[in-house]
Amino acid sequence: MLRKNHRFTLAARPVGLPTAKDFAFEEHELASPAEGELVVKVRYISLDPAMRGWMNDARSYIPPIKLGELMRAAGVGEVVESRHPGFAVGDRVSGVFGVQEYVVSSGAGLAPVDPRVPLPVMLSALGMPGLTAYFGLLDVGRPVAGNTVVVSGAAGAVGSVVGQIAKIHGCRAVGIAGGAEKCRYLTELGFDAAIDYKATDVKAALREQCPKGIDVYFDNVGGPILDAALTQLARGARVVICGAISQYNNTTPVVGPSNYLSLLVNRASMTGMVVFDYAARYGEAVREMAQWIAAGKLSSREDIVRGIEQFPTALLKLFSGENHGKLVLEVV
Amino acid sequence: MLRKNHRFTLAARPVGLPTAKDFAFEEHELASPAEGELVVKVRYISLDPAMRGWMNDARSYIPPIKLGELMRAAGVGEVVESRHPGFAVGDRVSGVFGVQEYVVSSGAGLAPVDPRVPLPVMLSALGMPGLTAYFGLLDVGRPVAGNTVVVSGAAGAVGSVVGQIAKIHGCRAVGIAGGAEKCRYLTELGFDAAIDYKATDVKAALREQCPKGIDVYFDNVGGPILDAALTQLARGARVVICGAISQYNNTTPVVGPSNYLSLLVNRASMTGMVVFDYAARYGEAVREMAQWIAAGKLSSREDIVRGIEQFPTALLKLFSGENHGKLVLEVV
Repeated sequence: MLRKNHRFTLAARPVGLPTAKDFAFEEHELASPAEGELVVKVRYISLDPAMRGWMNDARSYIPPIKLGELMRAAGVGEVVESRHPGFAVGDRVSGVFGVQEYVVSSGAGLAPVDPRVPLPVMLSALGMPGLTAYFGLLDVGRPVAGNTVVVSGAAGAVGSVVGQIAKIHGCRAVGIAGGAEKCRYLTELGFDAAIDYKATDVKAALREQCPKGIDVYFDNVGGPILDAALTQLARGARVVICGAISQYNNTTPVVGPSNYLSLLVNRASMTGMVVFDYAARYGEAVREMAQWIAAGKLSSREDIVRGIEQFPTALLKLFSGENHGKLVLEVV
Repeated sequence: MLRKNHRFTLAARPVGLPTAKDFAFEEHELASPAEGELVVKVRYISLDPAMRGWMNDARSYIPPIKLGELMRAAGVGEVVESRHPGFAVGDRVSGVFGVQEYVVSSGAGLAPVDPRVPLPVMLSALGMPGLTAYFGLLDVGRPVAGNTVVVSGAAGAVGSVVGQIAKIHGCRAVGIAGGAEKCRYLTELGFDAAIDYKATDVKAALREQCPKGIDVYFDNVGGPILDAALTQLARGARVVICGAISQYNNTTPVVGPSNYLSLLVNRASMTGMVVFDYAARYGEAVREMAQWIAAGKLSSREDIVRGIEQFPTALLKLFSGENHGKLVLEVV
């Protein structure tokens, strides 16, 4: 069966915010699967801040996307044709499918998706963002009951899960997000306090909300918010560096944390994490988080944009802070 | 017996580099020791970069020195009068005596000094700088044999011991220091490589000298050298934040490490340390380091300035980088 595939490739390296001209939208005829291969119809594509880093020609934790190459992206979909003994038509799978409608796969890197889980949740609380929150908070942040956990980008896909897991572990959870609506959402999720960085002095608000200091600070944003958090660390605090969305579109050098000597004053640590290092333990984390979801302790929210052709504009919602919950592109 | 005591107090909070006008040199009559007290004649006073921080009115790991108060400083001396059952005239002791000639003490905080150790060494390799190097490297940096250990301020009191302990533990030791003479000294101490930051591009030199990346970076200086080191971290590297002498006299905000996202790329950590936290283990460290000195594996060098009245100008040698080895003021 012949299929037309549409996909986005990287046409140029963005300077600052990515624009439509940095991508090419291409149509081509999909190759037929060889013996041992299968075809996945991609249903949902994950849009993540990390994608901005992959577009730069710089050494990082994975190689940059080459010019002319398919835009890298995680996704979930259904097997629509199979010449592979391990996959049947109708199977739901997740993998790094790229920003495209179909993928011909050998099966390598594909993971089965529990039929009880809605597909977008597999890109959100039970996907990379949820896993990042789980391992970043529990393994790197090492919170103990009674600790104060602060997370930035708290209404985002990672941050919202960090705060909820902090609550599950008996901690005080304080979220920093932009705007009253996001802050209301944090309160609905059970955060003890929400700080609107667009309306409040973050340093003063942290002082008020964290009277015993911050034990774990989970940073997704960098910039002035990281600096404000550093001023309020408790003795022995753990700062988890997960991302720095405020810096990804810089055309000038990254602004480093001016208050980093607070690490010395407070005998604190700042540690970087990349979720891929925990691949061997994804299963245990997904099982535990699925139980939390079933028990109503963990909620996942997705912001779904319809239409693969919306990719370049949808991606920008991440950097303007417009998305509410995990940003997902629905392939229709 | 009546004694005249001379001492320096803090007269003003320095802006930028401390000047003579920030201190007052005072003469007063020493109180006689009460029953249970003793008098120490201070022989050597330790001059340390950390003193600059103590002069600022800012929250830190110890309270700031108040205006009009004695300048805080570690020292070593001899008991010259005693009404304390635990101390006899002639006993050698160390403590936080301040920048003065005599101190009347209840004995609290005083530690006996092994008569075989030259007094200045008790302020150097076997004093706070040596202990800082010992615990900062071994407990926070956690080097293993074969690791590459890089230290900045490498010809200083802390840095020179860090590099030597790294060698004792089977590591490659690379030191960063200012000027050919200091770099020669590092080579004499057994460092595998010395990088002169005044004459070389530090980033390029680190790339050359650390082909497998930096496993442990022990930072005493902050600023551009910290940033250069961050670009060369190995996977899982440990950055020890011990000090930031390049930033202590800033009149503008501290410059944070622009390359801190290297912590994320390399799953590395940056941890602050304060030697006082290890007080319960000073004894074990001094015993082990004294053995290394006796075995010729660890050498201590002091830069001794004579005359307590030289205090304000001697202190500046730390910030201009003029001192060679541990800077000590000899009270004559």
